[in-house]
Amino acid sequence: MRLRVTYHLACSSRLAAAMARDIAFEQTVELPPDAVPPEVAARVAGRVESVESLGRGRSRAVISFDPVAVCGDLPQLLNLLFGNISFKPGTLIADLEWPEQLLTALRGPRLGIAGLRELTGARDRPLLCTVLKPLGLSAPQLAQLTYGFARAGVDLIKDDHSLADQTSAPFAERVERCQEAVVRANDETGGNALYFPNVTSDPSAMMERAGAARRAGCRGVLVNALPAGLGAVGEIAATTGLAIMSHPALAGAFFQPDHGFRVAGSDAVIYPNVGGRFTFSAATCAAINARLRAPLGPVAPAFPAPGGGIDAARVPQWVERYGADTILLIGGSLYAQPDPIAAAGQVVAAVRRHSHG
Amino acid sequence: MRLRVTYHLACSSRLAAAMARDIAFEQTVELPPDAVPPEVAARVAGRVESVESLGRGRSRAVISFDPVAVCGDLPQLLNLLFGNISFKPGTLIADLEWPEQLLTALRGPRLGIAGLRELTGARDRPLLCTVLKPLGLSAPQLAQLTYGFARAGVDLIKDDHSLADQTSAPFAERVERCQEAVVRANDETGGNALYFPNVTSDPSAMMERAGAARRAGCRGVLVNALPAGLGAVGEIAATTGLAIMSHPALAGAFFQPDHGFRVAGSDAVIYPNVGGRFTFSAATCAAINARLRAPLGPVAPAFPAPGGGIDAARVPQWVERYGADTILLIGGSLYAQPDPIAAAGQVVAAVRRHSHG
Repeated sequence: MRLRVTYHLACSSRLAAAMARDIAFEQTVELPPDAVPPEVAARVAGRVESVESLGRGRSRAVISFDPVAVCGDLPQLLNLLFGNISFKPGTLIADLEWPEQLLTALRGPRLGIAGLRELTGARDRPLLCTVLKPLGLSAPQLAQLTYGFARAGVDLIKDDHSLADQTSAPFAERVERCQEAVVRANDETGGNALYFPNVTSDPSAMMERAGAARRAGCRGVLVNALPAGLGAVGEIAATTGLAIMSHPALAGAFFQPDHGFRVAGSDAVIYPNVGGRFTFSAATCAAINARLRAPLGPVAPAFPAPGGGIDAARVPQWVERYGADTILLIGGSLYAQPDPIAAAGQVVAAVRRHSHG
Repeated sequence: MRLRVTYHLACSSRLAAAMARDIAFEQTVELPPDAVPPEVAARVAGRVESVESLGRGRSRAVISFDPVAVCGDLPQLLNLLFGNISFKPGTLIADLEWPEQLLTALRGPRLGIAGLRELTGARDRPLLCTVLKPLGLSAPQLAQLTYGFARAGVDLIKDDHSLADQTSAPFAERVERCQEAVVRANDETGGNALYFPNVTSDPSAMMERAGAARRAGCRGVLVNALPAGLGAVGEIAATTGLAIMSHPALAGAFFQPDHGFRVAGSDAVIYPNVGGRFTFSAATCAAINARLRAPLGPVAPAFPAPGGGIDAARVPQWVERYGADTILLIGGSLYAQPDPIAAAGQVVAAVRRHSHG
């Protein structure tokens, strides 16, 4: 089977056939058809499978590629799908159909929804995740927040994605203190709260930080997937056994609706929820959720983690709309309260009440 | 000194002040001002330095950041500059003023223009670069092209950016054969042509391939900088001593005019030339050239490498317009000729004739 990519093109179907053929050649042999030996073109160039009008000067083209071109390599996948044609205005990737062999090579989440449920002990309700912030607090201050959130019953407590190795709370000290805090809280409550430090950095530093997190007893990490590079995310998933939560920093420049990073190995994918301070629509959020949870050959389902517009009062609405296989990410609305820990406790209660009621 | 970022905002100056304040907080403490302890906000949040109207509903805001937040780390730099606000429509980074300490930490090109001139022996003329393609040729076929181009006097012969480790020309065999071909040609001509293989892959594979290239005798490599991750590009520059030529795959989704990757360690930066098959304007190309060559504290100047719209007939025009500190990248127009090697020879002759008057 071939990798089938559906492109939406901002042109009439009359022009779309030529544009699709351009894409098929540009993304593979990168030469016009008449400069490529015919046997190479037949073997290597993308194949235009269909072109049809979407009306209003827009068209849909399906182009298929030999998955051998990808080499089971995420950077080369990005290059094949959108490398050069990122410079062509009016070109959008709308859908992908994956050959099983490619999915097997790319692997995807190692823990996925089932694995994260196992780690947190939360069987049949949405998980609750919150964020340690702001940048500028000391490691002891962040650890104190960790302890409070874990005591309040939050499942996942992650670093803000801007916490790197700043002198205010250096990575090594932060991980040691926050992990100690979450273990202490769990000992007291009998709970299974987890602390996920942000390990995003240059590749070798990122691997070192992931290793340090694992040795400290963390079961997962946060990665800013695009700044880090999807290949680096995949390597952490492949080599450390840690759960990976990916943050969408920079993705606004890149992605239109319906995208997630499941094939890069993320067990949970954060995205900007409708009603928050960014601009995703309800339909986009529903599409992301569906895409991350859906069967995909050998690739495990991953948790969607909408963030933004979620607080205690609105928890019932989000649980109702998104269902149990969701990580509700709550940060800013807690910190807007005089007592963020108490506010977290109210959200925890709301999730449990509504999920078991 | 602080890192000063000039944003262009698609709103009137009346609204721009609030939007700039949002950006200053979103990109650092990621909380609204009233949820941040005042001493943390004063120390950590971005500072709005100025806001002014550009007319027609557009504004310019300068926001400064404490460079300590970057941790000398390229992924965190991308996150600070544009992470979350990539989701805010109408937000463009138009300029950066760098504190010297941050440039020192990020390092930039190790060879730069001077180092590449040293390696190629081309002192005072534009360098000529061509591309091995298409994907689908065997390693011996690519080596034969390498030999021909080197004999013809091309300075830099790089892999097409889609050549990864496909079975048609596996990386190890390709590097061995193409490097052997370029050495053989140099022995015959007394020239200094260089072969740059594409090492883009997951981080550990990329480092392995860069190491293999160095052991084979290559003096530089090609990297698809955004798919690979800028941190990985920086690590190759920092650890291998190889020259780095960066390819702009995916950058169309990301960057508006005036951007290059010099701080990521690239010695030469490929971009789509005006008049080629993509959409950069003459002003954008001029801005990229100026930016890459300009003094920037401790960071070495890098070669701009415009590709597209360059052939033997138009060489005089491009040499005239872009000057000597340019790598002219010529691929498609050679392969459109019945004999690409002979065509390369004509371009080489045109560059030398025109550069020496």
